[in-house]
Amino acid sequence: MIALVGEADRLRIARAFRESLPVGPAVEAHLAAAVRDALATPGSLARAQLAFAVGRRYGLDAGRALRLGTALEYFHTASLLFDDLPSMDDATERRGRPCVHTVHGEGAAVLAALALITRAYELLWRVLGSVEPARAGRAAGLVAECLGVGGILDGQARDLHFAAGDAEEVLAVARGKTVTLIRLTLVLPALAGTASEEELAALGALAESWGLAYQAVDDFKDRLWTRREAGKPTARDRALGRPNLPGRAGPDVALAHLERLMTEAAGQLALLRREGPWPALARLHGLLEREAASIRERLGLRACA
Amino acid sequence: MIALVGEADRLRIARAFRESLPVGPAVEAHLAAAVRDALATPGSLARAQLAFAVGRRYGLDAGRALRLGTALEYFHTASLLFDDLPSMDDATERRGRPCVHTVHGEGAAVLAALALITRAYELLWRVLGSVEPARAGRAAGLVAECLGVGGILDGQARDLHFAAGDAEEVLAVARGKTVTLIRLTLVLPALAGTASEEELAALGALAESWGLAYQAVDDFKDRLWTRREAGKPTARDRALGRPNLPGRAGPDVALAHLERLMTEAAGQLALLRREGPWPALARLHGLLEREAASIRERLGLRACA
Repeated sequence: MIALVGEADRLRIARAFRESLPVGPAVEAHLAAAVRDALATPGSLARAQLAFAVGRRYGLDAGRALRLGTALEYFHTASLLFDDLPSMDDATERRGRPCVHTVHGEGAAVLAALALITRAYELLWRVLGSVEPARAGRAAGLVAECLGVGGILDGQARDLHFAAGDAEEVLAVARGKTVTLIRLTLVLPALAGTASEEELAALGALAESWGLAYQAVDDFKDRLWTRREAGKPTARDRALGRPNLPGRAGPDVALAHLERLMTEAAGQLALLRREGPWPALARLHGLLEREAASIRERLGLRACA
Repeated sequence: MIALVGEADRLRIARAFRESLPVGPAVEAHLAAAVRDALATPGSLARAQLAFAVGRRYGLDAGRALRLGTALEYFHTASLLFDDLPSMDDATERRGRPCVHTVHGEGAAVLAALALITRAYELLWRVLGSVEPARAGRAAGLVAECLGVGGILDGQARDLHFAAGDAEEVLAVARGKTVTLIRLTLVLPALAGTASEEELAALGALAESWGLAYQAVDDFKDRLWTRREAGKPTARDRALGRPNLPGRAGPDVALAHLERLMTEAAGQLALLRREGPWPALARLHGLLEREAASIRERLGLRACA
């Protein structure tokens, strides 16, 4: 778990992730085990922390901000369970452990993912049910836009059928798979709270810059990091013909693109921090800055070697 | 499409099913084709008609009743797409056509199912957003209960890992896979409308009786009908070791169970019709009665042969 919010809030967020999808003793054993496994490896919980921080900033009480954050992590975790299936990425390892489908079977992994989605919608509902109707309606529309056929599902389908895609298509995949969930993470809690139209627009733009930057960093890592450094198998994109920005656009073009995105993000962040400091967003931006610096350094070393 | 409501309403329901998940030209081609295929074969639309009839009975306007019905059919259709996957039932044919995953690939079939689910939740939200908060909250809880880890997902997991299950486990599968969606179909529109507590309870009980009866009929069909009569491959449950009530409990016990369920359903129906005739429910009950009579007749013929 990375640290974007204070320790007490991190503990609450981690507990909410683990405990918000109770599985009773009567539930079928494979499904129950698959759900428990998915909840046992929460990953960075970056989305939950960001959503929590945004919700709190715009006046949500801690309970509601926590529910939104948990819902977003559940959507994200479900997308990873689907991603890893043999018919998708065919991965065997996730978050340093064997994938859920390799341990409990594909069927149980699919059902566990659907359990996370069902619960995520219930959590969203419990928050949006007390939001002023017009804003709740916009929030519901945003969820459908980000998670639906024109959002993350389109990104996943493009990823799956990428094959001969060019750099433009790499960006389309990143917009679909990565930006959509970050957009939901930053904008949904702001819509559920009291953010102004200007702030909603800045959060949406920040999600686009960060999402594409994050994906570019991830693509560079696949090319430049060892498996040990990355904590997951690397050099896979080239081997499997997967979307990879430096791979398709060349490392120089990709690095320039990453630096432009970081500059744009810094501008959006400045706008959002006009009302006062915002540590959670500043920390995530700092993490991305350090990753970008490390990529620059490695590329420099390579050029000299 | 079977006929539970009047022709004009049937046409609206069929159109809403076809047209409520628009797929723009920018959507990835395999995903777009998979969604279009899923929408091109709506099946009986029994759930949409029932939900529509219940919603209208309890004061919902036609647009909201239609949205609830479409949402329920989308959840149902998504469950069939998942059901048919190689890791689940490994089916090749559905509604008289090749399964979506055999034509467009497993990945696209999974993503199309998720597109249906996302859209279904958006449609539900558009209806429940204008329902009185306490009832909307109960409705959201009901959705999570029926579609979540203790509902249809548990049923599907039990079905998948059935192997040596007994007659009790056959009923647990039917409660999970069949009753949950019928319960949602009958109770959700009543909750969104003005049904009394007594009516809600009667609809829930009717869903249990009908759901188990429907599943028992389906199990008998798998044993007694030819492929041509059933419109789908038969004699599969025995060959694949799948849950089948007459198979596990014996045909006499299963028939007695079916007849008891039909008697219970008739009682619940009588209660619900105290306020006046209710053609949609009466027609569905009549269809089930005719199926049960046909099973009785075939079993009689068999006993004589």
